Amino acid sequence: MAKTPPRGPLSGFPELLPEQRFVEQQVIDTLRRVFELHGFAGIETRAVEPLDQLLRKGDTSKEVYLLRRLHEESAEGHAGLGLHFDLTVPFARYVLENAGKLAFPFRRYQVQKAWRGERPQEGRFREFTQADIDIVGRDSLAFHHDIEVTRVMVDALTRLDFLPAFRLQVNNRKLIQGFYAGLGLGADDTDEVMRLVDKLDKLSVDKVRELLLADAGISAADADRVLELATIRSDDDGFVEQVRALGVEHELLDEGLAELAELVRGCADLVSDRVRVTADLSIARGLDYYTGTVFETRLDGYESMGSICSGGRYDALASDGRTTYPGVGISLGVSRVVVPLLARTGLTASRSVPSVVLVAVVDEEGRPTSSAVADGLRRRDIACEVAPDAAKFGKQIRYAERRGIPFVWFTTTTEDGTVTHEVKDIRSGEQVSADPAAWTPPTDDLRPQVLLKEQQ
Amino acid sequence: MAKTPPRGPLSGFPELLPEQRFVEQQVIDTLRRVFELHGFAGIETRAVEPLDQLLRKGDTSKEVYLLRRLHEESAEGHAGLGLHFDLTVPFARYVLENAGKLAFPFRRYQVQKAWRGERPQEGRFREFTQADIDIVGRDSLAFHHDIEVTRVMVDALTRLDFLPAFRLQVNNRKLIQGFYAGLGLGADDTDEVMRLVDKLDKLSVDKVRELLLADAGISAADADRVLELATIRSDDDGFVEQVRALGVEHELLDEGLAELAELVRGCADLVSDRVRVTADLSIARGLDYYTGTVFETRLDGYESMGSICSGGRYDALASDGRTTYPGVGISLGVSRVVVPLLARTGLTASRSVPSVVLVAVVDEEGRPTSSAVADGLRRRDIACEVAPDAAKFGKQIRYAERRGIPFVWFTTTTEDGTVTHEVKDIRSGEQVSADPAAWTPPTDDLRPQVLLKEQQ
Repeated sequence: MAKTPPRGPLSGFPELLPEQRFVEQQVIDTLRRVFELHGFAGIETRAVEPLDQLLRKGDTSKEVYLLRRLHEESAEGHAGLGLHFDLTVPFARYVLENAGKLAFPFRRYQVQKAWRGERPQEGRFREFTQADIDIVGRDSLAFHHDIEVTRVMVDALTRLDFLPAFRLQVNNRKLIQGFYAGLGLGADDTDEVMRLVDKLDKLSVDKVRELLLADAGISAADADRVLELATIRSDDDGFVEQVRALGVEHELLDEGLAELAELVRGCADLVSDRVRVTADLSIARGLDYYTGTVFETRLDGYESMGSICSGGRYDALASDGRTTYPGVGISLGVSRVVVPLLARTGLTASRSVPSVVLVAVVDEEGRPTSSAVADGLRRRDIACEVAPDAAKFGKQIRYAERRGIPFVWFTTTTEDGTVTHEVKDIRSGEQVSADPAAWTPPTDDLRPQVLLKEQQ
Repeated sequence: MAKTPPRGPLSGFPELLPEQRFVEQQVIDTLRRVFELHGFAGIETRAVEPLDQLLRKGDTSKEVYLLRRLHEESAEGHAGLGLHFDLTVPFARYVLENAGKLAFPFRRYQVQKAWRGERPQEGRFREFTQADIDIVGRDSLAFHHDIEVTRVMVDALTRLDFLPAFRLQVNNRKLIQGFYAGLGLGADDTDEVMRLVDKLDKLSVDKVRELLLADAGISAADADRVLELATIRSDDDGFVEQVRALGVEHELLDEGLAELAELVRGCADLVSDRVRVTADLSIARGLDYYTGTVFETRLDGYESMGSICSGGRYDALASDGRTTYPGVGISLGVSRVVVPLLARTGLTASRSVPSVVLVAVVDEEGRPTSSAVADGLRRRDIACEVAPDAAKFGKQIRYAERRGIPFVWFTTTTEDGTVTHEVKDIRSGEQVSADPAAWTPPTDDLRPQVLLKEQQ
């Protein structure tokens, strides 16, 4: 027998009230607009992937949800299908499947839900919306695209003006791997060392040093060098000198240093009160298969949320055996940013409905007159609704008030057949004559605005 | 062991190329805009629902997908969760869960994916996008909202100007049930008769008559009356006289006739070359729990696709035992319309990328100059991209051509340091001097256009 299903909200599956959803929708619309301005085409991929694709890294930590049809005999999942846990695995498959019909380098954005069965906590959900941009080449992809995707995402985040200031932390896997190779660490050690260094955002330097000796089994001298590298931070290309001062040499290290310096210089003009770009040599992005640039992004004051926007370069985003498709991309956790901000800051919309006008109804016989006024306003792109019943005007005004609709429109016909139109701003109480073919609300009222609660 | 997963496209899970996705996105944007102009607020609900909610009608024909976590011991589904098969069940739950925070009548739209494990066929998918509007009241909801949601959906469909002409078919459950009650049929008979009559779009009148006698066990005289009613069609309120002529009387029949006549009259002004509204007394919407108005919509020339847009009135969309929430709504099958139209008519976008301009690159040292031109264009809302490499101009132009980008921008610096800007319309070959701070493409080029293939 199935367990008793939960009632009410499900932990990890956030749902928003209309005025909160408006904020999320504004975020998504802004992202879309910026991505399109930079020439990225929108696509969507199906929610399901073959299970072996989802697990191909042998990494089951993503807590995949398997699907099974209700009437299916076997409990083994519907032909081995699961819900995607990110948008990168499906995108790689989409590129391979449609390679003959796509023009490379292919630039795409994708805003969709993903699912992970992990334990819910702040900023971590079982169902969440991600916004990804990637540029993927056939056989090769120039490094300047690494700078480009970084700049696009900074452009997008900057336009979300209710976001706190943020810091983009960049690093380069070639730099790390070249440095480790220069120390003489083997390929296996490199992975384990990188995995441990990646814990520096949660554990102390001493604790990580202990683990490097105990778990990775490297020498104390190597561990010191590894940690000296990982604790380098710089807001310009000064990190190059600091790394050089550690005295390690390797061709791959040179390449990584050059790329990272180019990235930091290529973003220097974006730095502002709200945006910092830091070379942070501890960033490694754990076990993910990045091969060059890696990025993370943290919101000031929300560091506990972790990185809201991460990505990097893959030498082989996809490969069909004959052709390899390198890619570089960033993924923004829309739910991860929006849901905690809504909860913590009281971010909301100035009203719970799109309507800027409520058209009042004098009596039910007059409803077609009110509807005609509303249709006329809509033809001029003014969102409105007609009152649900011909209640006293005071009650109709309260209907508008409860929803935050700023204007109520009154159309009355006198006994001699004269029709008069008046519109009331219910915030000021001011009521004026208005022509339904010409009246326009103030631009700021036309669409709901995103507000912090104290601004209301 | 899991079955071998399928490779390549999955039947029933349609995916679109970028230029096709652009068409779908345009459809969704148009729907959103129309719904918002009519005061509907957008919400989203989670993809999963408790299984008993999904199966509460005892109707397992929806072929629900169950979820199970990879590491879960039991194969019985993750706490009894499944993917939603429509947006009505989740919306009803959302209304109950948030009733204290919503203002009623509550008007919402919702554009989301839904999943059904049924056999894929044209216009029937396992994963599909729906666009729903509903108005839901607390305790009561005036009938004029039935007319309103109908008008909103006709407004939305009319603005999708690449859609074929369509016919809205309306009926009323009170009319059918009142007529059957007037004939003296019991409540059980009524359901079975309605289910059989609903087959009139697939079976002949004679065949349905046969089933009415054999399966529903009603008399030949009653079957004749039932079929006389079900074959009435009228483009105005003339159906009232035709029904009256059948001589059946019942209070509920009177109510249904009055409502349906009001609906048809209330939509009369929407009728045009592209839009017909027909009272079609065979429409019953099968086993769904409608209690008054019912709608279906068929595209001319695509009748085999079935109804693309259906809905109706529920006296109890939701109920918590104390309070009942009546609702009226319509659901448009976005995938059901868009995917077959793309396949059959070659509907596509005028280009595969949002960019209207490709900014050429003279040499890699000059890339920042090209990027600055591009940023300037973007600040004036002109989507563009910078060429991926400093190839010969002919090759850069072919890059634009392959994507359908109409303009290529050239910025050159002569030896004396003079910078000149020129823009080429690669369709006409015309190349002119241009000021990056002022040049604007023709309005029709600014965004990709939806085209039929022959228009290209």
